[in-house]
Amino acid sequence: MKVLQDGSILSARGFQAGWSCCGIKSTPGAPDVALVVSERPAAAAAVFTRNRFAAAPVLYDRSILPGEELRAVVVNAGNANACTGPRGLEDARETAALAASLIGCGPAQVAVASTGIIGHPLPMERLRRGVEDAFDALSAEPHAARGAEKAIMTTDTRPKACAVEAEIDGKPFRIGGMAKGSGMIAPNMATMLAFLTTDARVPAELLRQMLASAAERTFNRVTVDGDSSTNDSVFLLANGESGATVPEAGAGREAFQEALLHVAGELARAIVRDGEGATKSIEVRVAGALTEEEAQLCARAIAESQLVKCAVGGGDPNWGRVVCAAGYSGAELQPELTRVDIGSVTVFRDGLPTGADAASELGGSDVLIRVHLGAGQAEGAVWTCDLTKEYVDINSMYHT
Amino acid sequence: MKVLQDGSILSARGFQAGWSCCGIKSTPGAPDVALVVSERPAAAAAVFTRNRFAAAPVLYDRSILPGEELRAVVVNAGNANACTGPRGLEDARETAALAASLIGCGPAQVAVASTGIIGHPLPMERLRRGVEDAFDALSAEPHAARGAEKAIMTTDTRPKACAVEAEIDGKPFRIGGMAKGSGMIAPNMATMLAFLTTDARVPAELLRQMLASAAERTFNRVTVDGDSSTNDSVFLLANGESGATVPEAGAGREAFQEALLHVAGELARAIVRDGEGATKSIEVRVAGALTEEEAQLCARAIAESQLVKCAVGGGDPNWGRVVCAAGYSGAELQPELTRVDIGSVTVFRDGLPTGADAASELGGSDVLIRVHLGAGQAEGAVWTCDLTKEYVDINSMYHT
Repeated sequence: MKVLQDGSILSARGFQAGWSCCGIKSTPGAPDVALVVSERPAAAAAVFTRNRFAAAPVLYDRSILPGEELRAVVVNAGNANACTGPRGLEDARETAALAASLIGCGPAQVAVASTGIIGHPLPMERLRRGVEDAFDALSAEPHAARGAEKAIMTTDTRPKACAVEAEIDGKPFRIGGMAKGSGMIAPNMATMLAFLTTDARVPAELLRQMLASAAERTFNRVTVDGDSSTNDSVFLLANGESGATVPEAGAGREAFQEALLHVAGELARAIVRDGEGATKSIEVRVAGALTEEEAQLCARAIAESQLVKCAVGGGDPNWGRVVCAAGYSGAELQPELTRVDIGSVTVFRDGLPTGADAASELGGSDVLIRVHLGAGQAEGAVWTCDLTKEYVDINSMYHT
Repeated sequence: MKVLQDGSILSARGFQAGWSCCGIKSTPGAPDVALVVSERPAAAAAVFTRNRFAAAPVLYDRSILPGEELRAVVVNAGNANACTGPRGLEDARETAALAASLIGCGPAQVAVASTGIIGHPLPMERLRRGVEDAFDALSAEPHAARGAEKAIMTTDTRPKACAVEAEIDGKPFRIGGMAKGSGMIAPNMATMLAFLTTDARVPAELLRQMLASAAERTFNRVTVDGDSSTNDSVFLLANGESGATVPEAGAGREAFQEALLHVAGELARAIVRDGEGATKSIEVRVAGALTEEEAQLCARAIAESQLVKCAVGGGDPNWGRVVCAAGYSGAELQPELTRVDIGSVTVFRDGLPTGADAASELGGSDVLIRVHLGAGQAEGAVWTCDLTKEYVDINSMYHT
């Protein structure tokens, strides 16, 4: 597997992207509509938020997926079309139908995604123009991907994209992707959108299995503040353009799964690194758990502990807060066998602090916290970021 | 039931308190040892943290409770005696034995409690002197209670105490209490200590039932940051001094339970109001849930949402964050029947924002958020506080 320099959703062949500025975002001239189109019908898979207040675009997408193959996804940023009632669903449907008529496909072949403020109806007049402009701008050139990456951003400070190339039976295929994240990222994919494209041919059911598995191990393992949003969605379109076909089992399937995990993992970690106000990314790895579920439970409790996140932000290797979070996580553990490492320094062992100073392990932008529970063999991991005054600023100054 | 002005643990008759400064806290002259003594053996009940890393004093107390009646509780602040291994347990045992020898009772008649930094052995030489000094200072006068309330504080900014008087069959009895809280307060009673005294006579088993029930509805319903500590403990001593006896059932039991709920509730809310960096206390009430468990689950998700807490701190009536937290809480709800009120203003109804401005409802120091899930009849409530930059300051500047 090879990571492609400047990789994007257009690294996979047979895709085009377009974007436009239609004035949904309040910043004048900010791109806010993106359109990703597969030149031919593509097998499609998606994973959506489990929030009971799923937004209109999610409700719409669930109504068309799984179904026929998809030709496109239309995205807007600046307005989430959430908590907008029947009108919101109608707007989502109309947006898809408009894009479909431009592309020349069936309305059920276009998915939609939205992110931004909730509780306000989509400004449909602007959005219609935005979709038309984005369609007119469709291109397979890299600049089109770069524009689309910016168009889906909200409080993100930078675009997030990635692509890899691998092969199946000597035939190369590519997987590319883009994502937006920032605040409210959490397990179950809070306020996070990701769009993945591949030119491999993948049977629809296999594609769904592989995306679900990859999302579980990447997007569902990142958390900024524990909140899950109404709009989180991950899409994967496979158009077969490369001629490489992913088999149900064997080396070809493994090659595809590995490539997919890489792209999804890179995007998920990019989201955490760009968490609101974040200055450091934190990886929490838990080993020695009774079950994988308990390992995840424990890693998440540590990663979501405000006290742990504040300590990392302040450069304090506070093993006590880590141990405490492990203790209340609900995961089985043996206190006298528990071990905590911060970076390469063991700070807690056999139920006691070692006295070793791990402050230097918190100096960089990536922090690794490892915990062994001494209860079993299972492992888990969660990625998060530190909690800073800037996070509080961003989220208390923002007004509805 | 009558709330007593300047009520304290000494409002109940037959109790004495003493305190001392022995230098465990780093601030010179800060009181750090408290002793609460019942003049005669008292029925005792306690509720402890569920953290798997329970501190040595909790392990010790569990070993003597339920058991004989208690004569006293010794408390120190500044050092939690947590993650201190076998030596910590030995120190807890020795502290209890020392107090018992001074009082002239069996060592198993003295419980211990500690709060403060974790991972450091108790400075026993100082603590021994502190226990002796506190014993020498024992008094039933109000000033003794005031000193004890200060001695148990850590990052608390003010002492927390309360007492009420009620009667059973015309005989008056009293319940008093003191507590310390501040950061890391959470369900399962994180870094929180509470000491309750009553001069009612209550059979031990009934006392345990009533304390468990009251704690579930008060101390276990407050959260500052979701973290649960290694040391949380609530004690209730009933010495029968008033001659009022609580029956297994009927009006007398109800009078006692009501009085106990009042004192425990006041202390729990005082803890939230004094949360680290807090400027507002927030009560989240959930109704229309399928079960009480789901109502609590939903109230807790809202109360622990960093986004909701930041919004309240910033004076923003952000119904979207409330709705979103309800949506991912796991509680069953009907989106189109869900309703959110901030203070007396309905901000969300029938799945849509009402457009009403509730900013003025966030102006005071107490904020009420009510959510109706439209799924059933059950109710729940959780108390919390806002999340401010001061919280992040306190918890990132603090160094281990």
